[in-house]
Amino acid sequence: MTKRINVGIVGASGYAGGELLRILADHPQVRITVITSDTYAGQPVASSFPGLARKRLAAFTAYDQSKISQCDLVFLARDSGVAMKVAPQLLNAGVKVIDLSADFRLRDVNTYHQWYGIHHSEPDLCQEAVYGLPELFASRISSARLVANPGCYPTGAILALAPLLSHHLVESKTIIVDAKSGFSGAGRSKFGQDYHFAEVNESTAAYKVAVHRHTPEIEQICSEVAGRELVVSFTPHLIPITRGILSTCYATLLRPHSDEELQQIYSRFYDEAPFVRVVSNLPATKHVAGSNDCHIGLKTDLRTGRVVVISVIDNMVKGAAGQAVQNMNLMYGFGETAGLESGSIFP
Amino acid sequence: MTKRINVGIVGASGYAGGELLRILADHPQVRITVITSDTYAGQPVASSFPGLARKRLAAFTAYDQSKISQCDLVFLARDSGVAMKVAPQLLNAGVKVIDLSADFRLRDVNTYHQWYGIHHSEPDLCQEAVYGLPELFASRISSARLVANPGCYPTGAILALAPLLSHHLVESKTIIVDAKSGFSGAGRSKFGQDYHFAEVNESTAAYKVAVHRHTPEIEQICSEVAGRELVVSFTPHLIPITRGILSTCYATLLRPHSDEELQQIYSRFYDEAPFVRVVSNLPATKHVAGSNDCHIGLKTDLRTGRVVVISVIDNMVKGAAGQAVQNMNLMYGFGETAGLESGSIFP
Amino acid sequence: MTKRINVGIVGASGYAGGELLRILADHPQVRITVITSDTYAGQPVASSFPGLARKRLAAFTAYDQSKISQCDLVFLARDSGVAMKVAPQLLNAGVKVIDLSADFRLRDVNTYHQWYGIHHSEPDLCQEAVYGLPELFASRISSARLVANPGCYPTGAILALAPLLSHHLVESKTIIVDAKSGFSGAGRSKFGQDYHFAEVNESTAAYKVAVHRHTPEIEQICSEVAGRELVVSFTPHLIPITRGILSTCYATLLRPHSDEELQQIYSRFYDEAPFVRVVSNLPATKHVAGSNDCHIGLKTDLRTGRVVVISVIDNMVKGAAGQAVQNMNLMYGFGETAGLESGSIFP
Amino acid sequence: MTKRINVGIVGASGYAGGELLRILADHPQVRITVITSDTYAGQPVASSFPGLARKRLAAFTAYDQSKISQCDLVFLARDSGVAMKVAPQLLNAGVKVIDLSADFRLRDVNTYHQWYGIHHSEPDLCQEAVYGLPELFASRISSARLVANPGCYPTGAILALAPLLSHHLVESKTIIVDAKSGFSGAGRSKFGQDYHFAEVNESTAAYKVAVHRHTPEIEQICSEVAGRELVVSFTPHLIPITRGILSTCYATLLRPHSDEELQQIYSRFYDEAPFVRVVSNLPATKHVAGSNDCHIGLKTDLRTGRVVVISVIDNMVKGAAGQAVQNMNLMYGFGETAGLESGSIFP
Repeated sequence: MTKRINVGIVGASGYAGGELLRILADHPQVRITVITSDTYAGQPVASSFPGLARKRLAAFTAYDQSKISQCDLVFLARDSGVAMKVAPQLLNAGVKVIDLSADFRLRDVNTYHQWYGIHHSEPDLCQEAVYGLPELFASRISSARLVANPGCYPTGAILALAPLLSHHLVESKTIIVDAKSGFSGAGRSKFGQDYHFAEVNESTAAYKVAVHRHTPEIEQICSEVAGRELVVSFTPHLIPITRGILSTCYATLLRPHSDEELQQIYSRFYDEAPFVRVVSNLPATKHVAGSNDCHIGLKTDLRTGRVVVISVIDNMVKGAAGQAVQNMNLMYGFGETAGLESGSIFP
Repeated sequence: MTKRINVGIVGASGYAGGELLRILADHPQVRITVITSDTYAGQPVASSFPGLARKRLAAFTAYDQSKISQCDLVFLARDSGVAMKVAPQLLNAGVKVIDLSADFRLRDVNTYHQWYGIHHSEPDLCQEAVYGLPELFASRISSARLVANPGCYPTGAILALAPLLSHHLVESKTIIVDAKSGFSGAGRSKFGQDYHFAEVNESTAAYKVAVHRHTPEIEQICSEVAGRELVVSFTPHLIPITRGILSTCYATLLRPHSDEELQQIYSRFYDEAPFVRVVSNLPATKHVAGSNDCHIGLKTDLRTGRVVVISVIDNMVKGAAGQAVQNMNLMYGFGETAGLESGSIFP
Repeated sequence: MTKRINVGIVGASGYAGGELLRILADHPQVRITVITSDTYAGQPVASSFPGLARKRLAAFTAYDQSKISQCDLVFLARDSGVAMKVAPQLLNAGVKVIDLSADFRLRDVNTYHQWYGIHHSEPDLCQEAVYGLPELFASRISSARLVANPGCYPTGAILALAPLLSHHLVESKTIIVDAKSGFSGAGRSKFGQDYHFAEVNESTAAYKVAVHRHTPEIEQICSEVAGRELVVSFTPHLIPITRGILSTCYATLLRPHSDEELQQIYSRFYDEAPFVRVVSNLPATKHVAGSNDCHIGLKTDLRTGRVVVISVIDNMVKGAAGQAVQNMNLMYGFGETAGLESGSIFP
Repeated sequence: MTKRINVGIVGASGYAGGELLRILADHPQVRITVITSDTYAGQPVASSFPGLARKRLAAFTAYDQSKISQCDLVFLARDSGVAMKVAPQLLNAGVKVIDLSADFRLRDVNTYHQWYGIHHSEPDLCQEAVYGLPELFASRISSARLVANPGCYPTGAILALAPLLSHHLVESKTIIVDAKSGFSGAGRSKFGQDYHFAEVNESTAAYKVAVHRHTPEIEQICSEVAGRELVVSFTPHLIPITRGILSTCYATLLRPHSDEELQQIYSRFYDEAPFVRVVSNLPATKHVAGSNDCHIGLKTDLRTGRVVVISVIDNMVKGAAGQAVQNMNLMYGFGETAGLESGSIFP
């Protein structure tokens, strides 16, 4: 029998929390020991997630610092602004932390304040935190005690753009990311007309055009990969699906390339990445639903000199909980795909 | 390392076939050795199921009797009328067979002919075949060499009704099953306006009212459970979801029962069934999506003397491929839930 | 130029209110003079309904008794419990009232209290109010000053059952109505997880089984049509569509009838009804989307002795605003279809 | 009583044909005299469109040159390649023609051949035909005998871009159109897996990236408006809705403008356009569903120097049949909005 680490999940009754429970309940090297929820404290997990009834999980509890500090690793799945308060205590108690909020994603606390409207209390931890995109930063993640799990949009956009940027193939001022997301990305506690089925079914709209908080995150990592400062136009849309993000990324090529050349560059770039697949046709979000996979397809356009790169992920898995588990696997030397082997649900 | 059995899947490029591939690819006691598809022969599995690309499965091949006969077990996932032709040869070669078509579900070949319009060539096998609903027939399945995997609608309906019938709690002529199904149940090769997204999205309709082929299957098993001949009104509807069947079952109680009494009867009836869960509120198809679970809720109505029992399943899993794997597990003495542990995908 | 009546809409920012605005804005004999909304008072109609921007409608105002009393007719589109407070004043001021809530649908205030939990302050008006189902009560409606506009589920169920009941063709204790509704029926101000797109998309569930408030309304009118007291099993379901109700109605025939015989009975029954169409195949909700039509199909089942009658309506039109306008047309001697001519939106 | 023109619809059983029937059946200055369909010839319109049963329309007939030539105006709603064969005969017979296919949209028959793979037999008519976008070409349309009704994507894209191009506000090489369309745009006779509900529900994908046939149409008109040759990157996506196109258009501003400045420029540009509305927030496709409206919203991005303009239309109305009727209105001097007054269906 493998030795298992003790894991806690804070904010476990939301969508990302539920997805962590689903994945970790079957992870061969994990024991889920603490499951907190302010809303559901004292109730069984099945009260919030009937589909997990079979899993014999412990009940939700209120957040208890002394209990949660006995975990080896804690996943924080709360809104931005919370993690910066609890992470220091956990780290001081020797607990490793993977934060699924935005609190430790941006290295510059001024940028954080500008986009999130919150003064950051832990600038040093922002410097220390490792951005948890394993395809780019695996070795740093391996030795991290604090991992900032990427946002859903940034995951799709960065994976689509990184090979182009790393190889300096595109004009840096021409990058546009037009993203289409399902409604699970909004979170479970977002109520009101904007999420009412009757209002959004059979409809689509963009939102937060030019002001979405994931913009500086995309720019920070893309700039790091490119080796120089970039700005990116990022436009998120909501489409009437539950899960999935498709990111259509545009950039002007510095010199002409065929589709095949670029596909080879992409395939080599992701050669060691078990969850990224470069496809020769165009990817659909359904191809990755329920899995930690990212599929990437691309087409060059000789007429306009642009390349169009399209990535698809399941925003709840590769865009949140699955990637968090992938990070955990790297931090503990487990197989990178442990607990994340299952194929996508189709159709 | 566990010893693995060699398994073949015939008709693997359809929806049920793909679901078998998804589940069996991760099954700890199975090696998939033959994957046939007339349409995709020679092509990789990812050509039909891009989401399975990571699974290192063999390519699709044409049906080859000699090769397929070397399997320990074969899943037949073809249309009705095909299994009766290939099953005899496979059984003669010592291969066990789980047939996902209707060919061996009805014991009476005249009934089969009446509802399916096909003369049955193997009446003896119809007698021998075991109806593969593990919650009712586990011991027979354990020793079967030919299992008739239940239809999707019958699975939901029978699981909802069996405790009532087994305990003789309802008037036998009052049973109505009103079922709502997603479109994956139609199969992958059903084209035409009836399945065109634009025609069926934002719509619902009943179909094959009073003439659906699953009716005699529901009646045969319900009669067996009740110990006398029953007829059932069965009305299937298509609703714009991909996966899931919700069966709303009506029957007049012979004498009054409270919800709690009936829930206890149901809970005891399914005490040993790892995939059936009796819930105290009303079940939703989303609670079981992607899993082999069946959730059952019920309400009595003192005003009308009826009980309304509602079951939900994922038609592709408990209603097809998952149940087939559950049957395989029983036939080989594997754990009943092996390969079927994962919780449902939510939301 | 036709003379136009002055019409007010109270509670105009909800779904039924918006649908009244859409229909009445183009009605040749109506001038919309008052549009009230507590939430949107002072704002243009386009703030709540961007699609009505072209209509040059007045802005939303707060409810003002003196102003609203100058209308010829007022539509009340508020929650139950409100209409009983404002209708008396309006009627006293000589204003005709069509109430879209449940306040005046049930003749017996005890029944109202039992199902709605509200003590009714206007038992006399409950006696006076005419149930606004024009296919059954056109002449009473013509001379009414207070019309209780039917609920969405009762409209579909009663239109499906009335010919059977009127002709005494079925056993009165065998009636079951299994209804499937879109989410617009929940109303616009219903927030929370139960209406969150991510929770209900790709899912279906029953709700309020055996306790839904529309049950006594269905029973009251069905009893009146049948000429004796009936009880009905009524089970509502939500399916992931925005508009539409499909009602699958079951009843045991007293003696055998062919489909054709029953279709003729239905066609004759609705001979003068411009919005009801008896179809020879099975109706789909999409066939009536956006229109005031009701399509009815039926199938008899010799094996079980039952008839299955299926009706479809658009819950926002024939199930609410369209029917209210149809009632207005009768009250003022306009053509019954005035303002309601447009065909359904397809696909 | 107004005098009515006699109108024929060729290819009336498809989605655009059905939408023409729906709109024209209520048009006060039109009599529909010929309704052709190869598939449904001899059958009533309700056989293909149950929702139009109430409209007392003539039956579908086979195409008959002598009969159709007696119309005043004919709408051609067939696939590309057909109109070029029948339009010359109709025009010679003095019939006006509005063609909903692509046959007369591109002035250059070489471009047509390059993108459509068909040799054009009527280059002179391509020169004569007027591009039927009333917001740009109303006066030409008024005197045309042959109108090329715009494609659905071009309608949304051109309306979004025209003010920018007309005022020379953007760099001409920076234009990108990222469009999201519902499935009705695929047409009714497109069968196969690509349109199967189970395959495309809960999914999204791009298609024909950099090679979609609407690209040269967008470029031709945008170039004309801008007064110089443009190329445009155009990427269509299918999202799981039935109706609607949202076009997200990107361009780099030549000099900074505020949102308000650009909104004013847009509002003035469309001052006389009854169906175009410039909105201060972001438009959703649901706001225009079922109507001939186009809503346009925009946001500038100081960080990147780009403007993002978003337009929404109902692809079946403003993107096809509604716009065709708008063109007819101009050709005959009817009110531009005649028959197109109805507000959008919401929710």
